[in-house]
Amino acid sequence: MNPTIELLKSHRSIRKFKDQQIPRELFEDLIRAGQCAATSNHVQAYTIIHVVNPESRRKLAELAGGQTYVESCSDFLVFCADMKRATESAEKAGADVIRGMTEQLLVASIDAALIAQNVVVAAESEGLGICYIGGIRNNPQEVSDLLKLPEHVYPVFGLCLGYPDQQPEVKPRLPLAAILKQDAYDDSQDEHLVARFDDTMARYYRERTGGNKDTNWSEQLKPLFTSKLRPHMKEFLNKRGFGLK
Amino acid sequence: MNPTIELLKSHRSIRKFKDQQIPRELFEDLIRAGQCAATSNHVQAYTIIHVVNPESRRKLAELAGGQTYVESCSDFLVFCADMKRATESAEKAGADVIRGMTEQLLVASIDAALIAQNVVVAAESEGLGICYIGGIRNNPQEVSDLLKLPEHVYPVFGLCLGYPDQQPEVKPRLPLAAILKQDAYDDSQDEHLVARFDDTMARYYRERTGGNKDTNWSEQLKPLFTSKLRPHMKEFLNKRGFGLK
Repeated sequence: MNPTIELLKSHRSIRKFKDQQIPRELFEDLIRAGQCAATSNHVQAYTIIHVVNPESRRKLAELAGGQTYVESCSDFLVFCADMKRATESAEKAGADVIRGMTEQLLVASIDAALIAQNVVVAAESEGLGICYIGGIRNNPQEVSDLLKLPEHVYPVFGLCLGYPDQQPEVKPRLPLAAILKQDAYDDSQDEHLVARFDDTMARYYRERTGGNKDTNWSEQLKPLFTSKLRPHMKEFLNKRGFGLK
Repeated sequence: MNPTIELLKSHRSIRKFKDQQIPRELFEDLIRAGQCAATSNHVQAYTIIHVVNPESRRKLAELAGGQTYVESCSDFLVFCADMKRATESAEKAGADVIRGMTEQLLVASIDAALIAQNVVVAAESEGLGICYIGGIRNNPQEVSDLLKLPEHVYPVFGLCLGYPDQQPEVKPRLPLAAILKQDAYDDSQDEHLVARFDDTMARYYRERTGGNKDTNWSEQLKPLFTSKLRPHMKEFLNKRGFGLK
């Protein structure tokens, strides 16, 4: 196993950071490494907002559901899907541009995820810790107002970066056979594989809590699907000019 | 610059592969490294279809718009957003599950992108080359039929993996200042920055073609936005059970 693969396999989210700043030169290097990720048709449909203002950080921590590490990490980034720059550039070059397609939402969201994951790998290769903040989609309009995002730009997720002040364990993942299929989708073994994973996760939670947390993967997922997950997203995306058409 | 960051910065898509197979053990290791990427609420909302059948590979190459390297690479993967496994597991644990939310489309698509980008970095760290195939969204229903994808699963993109038989240059990216903003979205400098990038890309295309290709970034984007980009995607996603609601 080479050191890069070893690094990827050692990932875990960090939610407690040292009071230590990432040097600006290194920070920029992480973003440049991120930019080298693949991008659909070279469109680079993303903008990163680097949130430095302490009052904005405090508000974002609150808007994300009280995630204090948004405030306490060294650097907080909001990765935005951005169809504004590319479509306006094509327009200036003379194109009669069509916006608001569902496909453009996918292209821009995926582009944002690819650059973010490269930034994450670069950061972790320098001993930094990270935590994705999907919670900014709890209040995406307020986040957009705070960051002055224009139409055709929407905040996909946040990312905390900093020097770890905790060393959590690596969290187990589903058995390979559950997520990797050959030639066709065949889930005939999945019930068995998920049951095995539920046991793994039950053990993981017990061990981490001295026996106090009696749950498993399937149980943990329940609250996620029993209420309408962020039901504002459809209308919000429509208002931002992301389709859906 | 550490070797991992150097690796990230050396990425370029590979479209010509040697006739050489990736050993199965290494292949599985790449997927396992992929699985360690962050996943929203531990939901792991993805399934990877490893397409081995030569006839399926031929058809997929065609469905993706005649991309022959889908056939000629060592391993071809289709990364699917999968809300079936997680919601069914929660259901079996007793949850009254709600499906079809726009937010679930985002969660699953982003989860698929994060695992894919980790697989890419792992592959490149072993000297392999990759090429993302967004073209499978040209004919997503046919791809879904071929791979027997059930409801609540959709093919996000393909990925070619193999030993490179070409050494293309790294493609330039937008200036950092265009994609990285502090505290708020401010595009007052973007016209100037894009113009600079257009010059960079014009030079890149000229040099690679002995002066025969006279174009730039903005020009290259025009065809992407002047027609309705994959207008079937909205209805297709609706039919797959991905909202949009």
